[in-house]
Amino acid sequence: LREKMSDQESYVEELTDKSDDYSRWYTEVILKAELADYAPVRGCMVIRPYGYTLWENMQRLLDARIKATGHVNAYFPLLIPESFLAREAEHVAGFAPEVAWVTQGGSERLEERLAVRPTSEAIIGMMYSKWIHSWRDLPVLINQWCNVMRWEKVTRLFLRTTEFLWQEGHTVHRTDEEAQEETLKMLGVYSAFLREDLAVPVIPGQKTEAEKFKGAERTYSIEAMMGDGRALQAGTSHHLGQHFAKVFNITFQDMDGERKHAWQTSWGVSTRLIGAVIMVHGDDSGLILPPRVAPIQVAVIPIWRKEHEREEVADFVARVQRALGGSVRLKVDWDDEHTPGWKFNEWELRGVPLRMEVGPRDVKNNQVVLVRRDNRAKEMVPFDNIQARTTELLEEVQSDLFKRAQAFLESRTRHVDSYEEFKRELEGEQRGFLLAHWCNDPACEARIKEETRATIRCIPLEGEAEEGACVLCGGVSGSRVVFGRSY
Amino acid sequence: LREKMSDQESYVEELTDKSDDYSRWYTEVILKAELADYAPVRGCMVIRPYGYTLWENMQRLLDARIKATGHVNAYFPLLIPESFLAREAEHVAGFAPEVAWVTQGGSERLEERLAVRPTSEAIIGMMYSKWIHSWRDLPVLINQWCNVMRWEKVTRLFLRTTEFLWQEGHTVHRTDEEAQEETLKMLGVYSAFLREDLAVPVIPGQKTEAEKFKGAERTYSIEAMMGDGRALQAGTSHHLGQHFAKVFNITFQDMDGERKHAWQTSWGVSTRLIGAVIMVHGDDSGLILPPRVAPIQVAVIPIWRKEHEREEVADFVARVQRALGGSVRLKVDWDDEHTPGWKFNEWELRGVPLRMEVGPRDVKNNQVVLVRRDNRAKEMVPFDNIQARTTELLEEVQSDLFKRAQAFLESRTRHVDSYEEFKRELEGEQRGFLLAHWCNDPACEARIKEETRATIRCIPLEGEAEEGACVLCGGVSGSRVVFGRSY
Repeated sequence: LREKMSDQESYVEELTDKSDDYSRWYTEVILKAELADYAPVRGCMVIRPYGYTLWENMQRLLDARIKATGHVNAYFPLLIPESFLAREAEHVAGFAPEVAWVTQGGSERLEERLAVRPTSEAIIGMMYSKWIHSWRDLPVLINQWCNVMRWEKVTRLFLRTTEFLWQEGHTVHRTDEEAQEETLKMLGVYSAFLREDLAVPVIPGQKTEAEKFKGAERTYSIEAMMGDGRALQAGTSHHLGQHFAKVFNITFQDMDGERKHAWQTSWGVSTRLIGAVIMVHGDDSGLILPPRVAPIQVAVIPIWRKEHEREEVADFVARVQRALGGSVRLKVDWDDEHTPGWKFNEWELRGVPLRMEVGPRDVKNNQVVLVRRDNRAKEMVPFDNIQARTTELLEEVQSDLFKRAQAFLESRTRHVDSYEEFKRELEGEQRGFLLAHWCNDPACEARIKEETRATIRCIPLEGEAEEGACVLCGGVSGSRVVFGRSY
Repeated sequence: LREKMSDQESYVEELTDKSDDYSRWYTEVILKAELADYAPVRGCMVIRPYGYTLWENMQRLLDARIKATGHVNAYFPLLIPESFLAREAEHVAGFAPEVAWVTQGGSERLEERLAVRPTSEAIIGMMYSKWIHSWRDLPVLINQWCNVMRWEKVTRLFLRTTEFLWQEGHTVHRTDEEAQEETLKMLGVYSAFLREDLAVPVIPGQKTEAEKFKGAERTYSIEAMMGDGRALQAGTSHHLGQHFAKVFNITFQDMDGERKHAWQTSWGVSTRLIGAVIMVHGDDSGLILPPRVAPIQVAVIPIWRKEHEREEVADFVARVQRALGGSVRLKVDWDDEHTPGWKFNEWELRGVPLRMEVGPRDVKNNQVVLVRRDNRAKEMVPFDNIQARTTELLEEVQSDLFKRAQAFLESRTRHVDSYEEFKRELEGEQRGFLLAHWCNDPACEARIKEETRATIRCIPLEGEAEEGACVLCGGVSGSRVVFGRSY
């Protein structure tokens, strides 16, 4: 799996400390762990095999969750005629500034510009108007995995790239209520996926009018906290109302015989989630990957000096592999160019959750040494117990990563009740989320953003109602909202 | 899985007969079985859920074969700067006429046009030159699943669309021999995938100079025969030589310390294979899908008149589902808008390999009726035998589909030894492949193509050497080649 690399014995030590320069640490980890590389096209990246395998594992688990809730996959065209994109006024205003346009096909100059899809509501809406006739055709529950493109000015590997990979669900319903239920159901699917599979705690909530998707009636998101306390919008789910149904004429004959406009939702997560996994779990030694999605779950480092030792160790490792069967994703590093110590560092950099050391003494004692990546806890495991203990440890790492991230999120989330405190917290060492009251006025939201660069990440769904006064203007507020600076 | 449809009781009967109008039959089957639909963008299609699930099943099986031979997946950018594409002279000459060009990003006019990838040798070559330094970095065995775009003048659903989905493998090797071995290995992977998973017989062979990939040293392909006797190039594998290595400067320090240009291969199959499955197996009633890739393997049609019968049947069907467990992909059609007879037709149209009928009498006799889609053979199966017999029948259908297609291919492949006979066979009722001698002269190949529209599909790898005289000029030939008209 690992692409072979040239002899660069010293690269591990060169990693910048997280606390010295978080942003540089982030980029270095990605490049050195070979998750991705810069492409020679503005703002684009190459997802290298190690990063892509991580994405495949994430995709497989999320796809299963999407299918388990009754959705099916399909594929819609990459190119969208400009006139389609233009039909929904807010939508085109929101996306036009960041569209890449195809204007030429072969030697022919196109009469109408074609957008490389920034999102697919328009083209899918057009097809739905063709396919949907009766209430019996509803609901339509379709998802698509694809690439999309947004001509971003400032880009950062995985977090904001000109092209990225994602899934976008597009559903059609008979009633407003059904569409609302679907919107929240998918937000729940995303929350569970991040929490259980990526070990990333999230705050699910509703976006304000200012922050919602252009063309949606209501937008919900899950917000995660990165290792520097900044927020990452990790997934969104939109209740589209009848906005697209009206402009694309998606109508159906209802049970009562009347022709009505349908209700729609759309929802998506992207390769940005790889950025979240890196930033939520990584440390000064590099990546720490949650076992459920790690391309390699156990890195086996054989240790030998003499040839006969190598043979003994190889036999033993083969026995271990048979004992483990197909139950774990395992890589045995037989490379003979590097020392075991170098390999320890390398697989730590790459975030492999467990290291298994096997040397001549271990062979003699019929055991292996297992070392956890997250806390470096080390233990001897007798041969007969390897299968059970490995599985157990992978589960423990998965659950401890979540607990640690959850504790971090909680420790960096504070209730603030004055604008002074609000600004002070944002400038402090322990930056994070601020739970503050807001009066619902977009003007207050805009002024806070302008003055502090903090935005309302969401109005949490899971919090409790609490009366209070807007942190800026003192106006009436029914509950606290989550403020934070975001990626 | 099936998208619900409006009440269109009569659509099944409307299907055109294959023998009346093959091309119309093909398009109708695709639209009526809801595999795909026309998109509102020139030459593009929408792959609908039923078609996409078929593609997902194909993808999963082929991906496993690609990984089992040591390859890993990655993702490279959609857009390729024009100057990159232009570096390999033959390559750009071959692809430039069919490239879609991005010339505008947001409000900014681009200084250099960007090609929507028609294939990725250029962009990948550039990245490889950055990643590869030493013989220790080799081989690089990377594959990518993605969308590509070629601005085709004449399009046809699945077979030739402006945008299509495919996988493209791109490998780098230390020696010419290793690259040649890889090229043929992947051709073998494709042959096995088509024969074993898609039940499609193929002729693996080498392309002539005129027909090879623009930029390759040698191209190999697998050629399949469609139901109308025409050839479909179903997959290609290219030995790229050092063409791209030289223009992108992909070099490595070899074991002997010298810096050398690397050797490369590329290989791909696309959603065109869905077209092959349709045309190789389908009949006048619609699709016939090979069980290994069919989205639904068994369509269960419950039959009842009175409500108490419905309940009995439902209980029995639930028992059958438990007995089958997760071993087959099964759909129970409880739709109460349509008659069982209509459903039989509908699931036949959609090519489901087995139909299971369950009525009150079957419940009483503790049995089901199983009907094969391919030959309509019908049998009663006692409850205790359902699991075993269903699995067995699915395997039989899979293997019989291959045998039938193989027999058809053989019956439509003829040895011809004169140009008169050659032309007569091409105009006959039983059109197919012609095995004829060819002198290796591109001029003869071109004249035959011009006069008969037949091309050399390949120089077969599996045939035996046989001396003979070129079917056109009488010149010396060392073996027969495969001629045919192609899609």
